[in-house]
Amino acid sequence: MHNYCLRLSFVGTNFHGWQVQPGLRTVQGVLERAIGELFGRSIRPTGCCRTDAGVHAKDYIANFKASRFFPPDSLLKALNALLPEDVGVSEVWLAEENFNARYSVKGKLYVYRVYPSHARNPFLEPFLWRFPYTLELEEMKKASGLFLGRHDFSGFAKLEGEEDPFVEIEECEVVENEGIVEIRVRAKRFLRYMVRRIAGALIYLGMGKLSLEDIREFLKGKKCPYTAKAKGLTLEKVFL
Amino acid sequence: MHNYCLRLSFVGTNFHGWQVQPGLRTVQGVLERAIGELFGRSIRPTGCCRTDAGVHAKDYIANFKASRFFPPDSLLKALNALLPEDVGVSEVWLAEENFNARYSVKGKLYVYRVYPSHARNPFLEPFLWRFPYTLELEEMKKASGLFLGRHDFSGFAKLEGEEDPFVEIEECEVVENEGIVEIRVRAKRFLRYMVRRIAGALIYLGMGKLSLEDIREFLKGKKCPYTAKAKGLTLEKVFL
Repeated sequence: MHNYCLRLSFVGTNFHGWQVQPGLRTVQGVLERAIGELFGRSIRPTGCCRTDAGVHAKDYIANFKASRFFPPDSLLKALNALLPEDVGVSEVWLAEENFNARYSVKGKLYVYRVYPSHARNPFLEPFLWRFPYTLELEEMKKASGLFLGRHDFSGFAKLEGEEDPFVEIEECEVVENEGIVEIRVRAKRFLRYMVRRIAGALIYLGMGKLSLEDIREFLKGKKCPYTAKAKGLTLEKVFL
Repeated sequence: MHNYCLRLSFVGTNFHGWQVQPGLRTVQGVLERAIGELFGRSIRPTGCCRTDAGVHAKDYIANFKASRFFPPDSLLKALNALLPEDVGVSEVWLAEENFNARYSVKGKLYVYRVYPSHARNPFLEPFLWRFPYTLELEEMKKASGLFLGRHDFSGFAKLEGEEDPFVEIEECEVVENEGIVEIRVRAKRFLRYMVRRIAGALIYLGMGKLSLEDIREFLKGKKCPYTAKAKGLTLEKVFL
């Protein structure tokens, strides 16, 4: 068996996230269909994580196994010819037999973008949460430090089954770039809604509607009621 | 009368260009409708140029006159609230009475983007012409110099009526940026299809299908048969 590994990216606007769901357009779904056309049978690719509907990925890793051999470069060309315009493959290689996109990746960097402005840039609009409020950047930077390290993220997540709510945050930063405020969060794994709720908490704090103390409470398990809009979130980088 | 001046930008993918055409979605059309809602009567804005269907503008200037006064900042907010997501206003100001977007702008910079690659980046795909051929960049750079100065662009244009075919090109450059080849052309005015045909000629020369001599012939009035795809063209900057 050959273990094909893909590096890809997708604009999430018109996808119901990564994971196949009956009747909905998903990235895993369109990829499965393209692979199926090339290999002559249905093969479901494994992804490095799920994503919510509307979330983007500038970087994403997937793999799948097949007995038929394609040179990686030919596979890249063939997949891009079959895939729709909002998903693209940038690299294909043959991985070790035990490589699994879900379990083998070493970390992920998410960037949440918020644009506190009345002006609108239609080139960036699909990739950020724009609103007309002012943000206190220094407060947000201070608060972002609270998330670093290992915490119980029950208050920021929709937990599934017996999932471990403790996550180690390796990076959490707030930076401003040409008027756009970026919230950067890096960890090995994330819980459902976790980044959007961290972003929500930091943004509402920046608007003066939350205090540092509130965020400390959320980090002790109190529910954070703010979930930032999906379209502002991008999986920016996957570390192998 | 107040002479309102707008700086805006639009993603051209779903527009049939700037100019109003019956039954088609155009930027001038959606802007006219938004202005109409605010001013209570139909006022058609004047634009700094027409654009082909599918062409983008990161920068665009328009103006319109109205007797009713709106503070510029309120007008910006109100227009962005009424306009669709693929067009956005970044600045509104009151101009001198004799300012006219079509005749008063001092120059325009167009950038044509071509991506000679099998890999696909879905974030950039709507803004470039991607194909799997190799381009001879040094040849293209050499050829771009031929366009500088004042030439008869009949061979590169669809002329309308008694239009003057002589245009002065102030800048024509080929630069590479992260694998994307940019063709940058600046002039005070352009003829219809002119930038897409200059780009077409340079790209086909880069593919080895044209010689410098062919381009010299086109600049003497021989028809250039190559028109680069609309979606690769962006009006990058308008000079006031």
